[in-house]
Amino acid sequence: MCSLPVPQEPLRRVAVTGGTHGNEMSGVCLVQQWLRDPGELQRASFAAVPVLANPAATAACRRYVDCDLNRVFTSTFLTARAHPDDPYEVTRARELNQLLGPKASGRAFDFVLDLHNTTANMGTCLLVKTTHDIFALHMCHHLQLQNPELPFLVSVDQHPGEETYDMTSVAKNGIGLELGPQPQGVLRADLLTRMRALVAKVLDFIQLFNQGTAFPAFEMEAYRIVRSVDFPRTEAGDLAGTVHPQLQDRDFEPLRPGAPIFQMFSGEDVLYEGESTVYPIFINEAAYYEKGIAFFQTEKLTLSVPALPALAPTPSPGP
Amino acid sequence: MCSLPVPQEPLRRVAVTGGTHGNEMSGVCLVQQWLRDPGELQRASFAAVPVLANPAATAACRRYVDCDLNRVFTSTFLTARAHPDDPYEVTRARELNQLLGPKASGRAFDFVLDLHNTTANMGTCLLVKTTHDIFALHMCHHLQLQNPELPFLVSVDQHPGEETYDMTSVAKNGIGLELGPQPQGVLRADLLTRMRALVAKVLDFIQLFNQGTAFPAFEMEAYRIVRSVDFPRTEAGDLAGTVHPQLQDRDFEPLRPGAPIFQMFSGEDVLYEGESTVYPIFINEAAYYEKGIAFFQTEKLTLSVPALPALAPTPSPGP
Repeated sequence: MCSLPVPQEPLRRVAVTGGTHGNEMSGVCLVQQWLRDPGELQRASFAAVPVLANPAATAACRRYVDCDLNRVFTSTFLTARAHPDDPYEVTRARELNQLLGPKASGRAFDFVLDLHNTTANMGTCLLVKTTHDIFALHMCHHLQLQNPELPFLVSVDQHPGEETYDMTSVAKNGIGLELGPQPQGVLRADLLTRMRALVAKVLDFIQLFNQGTAFPAFEMEAYRIVRSVDFPRTEAGDLAGTVHPQLQDRDFEPLRPGAPIFQMFSGEDVLYEGESTVYPIFINEAAYYEKGIAFFQTEKLTLSVPALPALAPTPSPGP
Repeated sequence: MCSLPVPQEPLRRVAVTGGTHGNEMSGVCLVQQWLRDPGELQRASFAAVPVLANPAATAACRRYVDCDLNRVFTSTFLTARAHPDDPYEVTRARELNQLLGPKASGRAFDFVLDLHNTTANMGTCLLVKTTHDIFALHMCHHLQLQNPELPFLVSVDQHPGEETYDMTSVAKNGIGLELGPQPQGVLRADLLTRMRALVAKVLDFIQLFNQGTAFPAFEMEAYRIVRSVDFPRTEAGDLAGTVHPQLQDRDFEPLRPGAPIFQMFSGEDVLYEGESTVYPIFINEAAYYEKGIAFFQTEKLTLSVPALPALAPTPSPGP
């Protein structure tokens, strides 16, 4: 496996971002709480910074004000000359790039953990950008080992060669944490508690790495998005049916050729006509209706992840 | 029991409204489907009219654009002189009042069935304005008898003497149908199927009444709202805690003095300090955060509903 470089220095500049989507309430409320009382985010070797990523969308309790913040961290948007008519989120992405980046520079933050919710029954899902990101995969594996009671799923969402565009991409490294199901605009205590514990474990992992812990090689399952599937629609673009009851809430379960995927309002079923078994995720996510996505098809991978070597000891100050 | 007058004529002008809140998808999609193909809404004595109540909010997939449409059907808003700066929903309420009213006039529609969803675990809930509305209560009882497999709950939401302000109030009679849990912006097949079947049964009841069926007296349970309870908040108005896991999803279940109702982000529990058992509803409804409502407390009632007499036969045409 071709690997990305792993960190050669302790990660001291770490951020936890919530409210990248302003109606995903677990991250919004955790970050607001940490801005009042950041003690939970401190470890011996660093103190993570809480960041409310999209304050205007959070105030309006909407995913975004003008456009999806989690899609605009591209060099085109980040480097273009500012203009008064720029979408709010483009302006905000530039501010975040100043705060946590600049993207792809040596001055960027070492790690960003970005907190999300979905209306889909995704359980506890970790979003990693590529299968080559050894450090992030070790972090995911650590979370799995530390929380054996949770169903953990690792999703890899980037196609090779594609430019990164999400919140975490301004930093040198990062992962997304996607917990569901939770309605937009609702804060459930159970998901809040789970997310809070997972953030603590992420910070613990960074602390272990910083203090010189080595992590052995392992194998893990992951899911890679291969395509999206839209709802059946009328000629006018309105919905003509919805996710079939036999698919609803079955994220990460195998979908076999011939199984029903949609139920039309006129009564008939629409079947999955692919040739191979896939693993749907983000099934019936509220935010994706406007993007023309009823669910994503993923393929299941088994990753052989090489060891993460211990950091070389920091040289002692000279005599 | 002091009763409202029951209809003395067949109900021929009936409307089914969806999208009063533009992100409550069961009603939105059913009405859109019926606008394309209204056959399902026909009965021998009438054809119900499907109405998309808030088209702009539906297009934006938001509850409302400027203000909550389901709160502005008051004489103040409906009779004030129109102004270009009026909120969209006030203008739209006047249009609906022309289409389905005018409110409190002899020309108003006979019945409006208004379709809603909630993020709360409310199951199948029928919203009736007063305990004196014999016709609506008979309709609810008929639905309960026809669907014994469903948990049916009837909520009475108006205080005596209060002016009506909701969508159904433009017609001579009406009820609201509130199905949950469903996230805003999501269409679940199971709730769609359930709502569609319930609408059919409402229309069947009207047809039975129109054709001269009498309905005997009965007793039924109902729940009346007594007060609302806000979330714990910081001085700045942000959430300081959320609905306790022991209360979440327990709509209509007894809440006893001393039971936990909120879990603070700082860790401690907030207990219910009332003196009597209440029955919370709309627990953790997304749309009510901005209204300062974490849940409503209701009291349980047993209603003795008198018989609904058969309509007098329509006089035959003279010789």
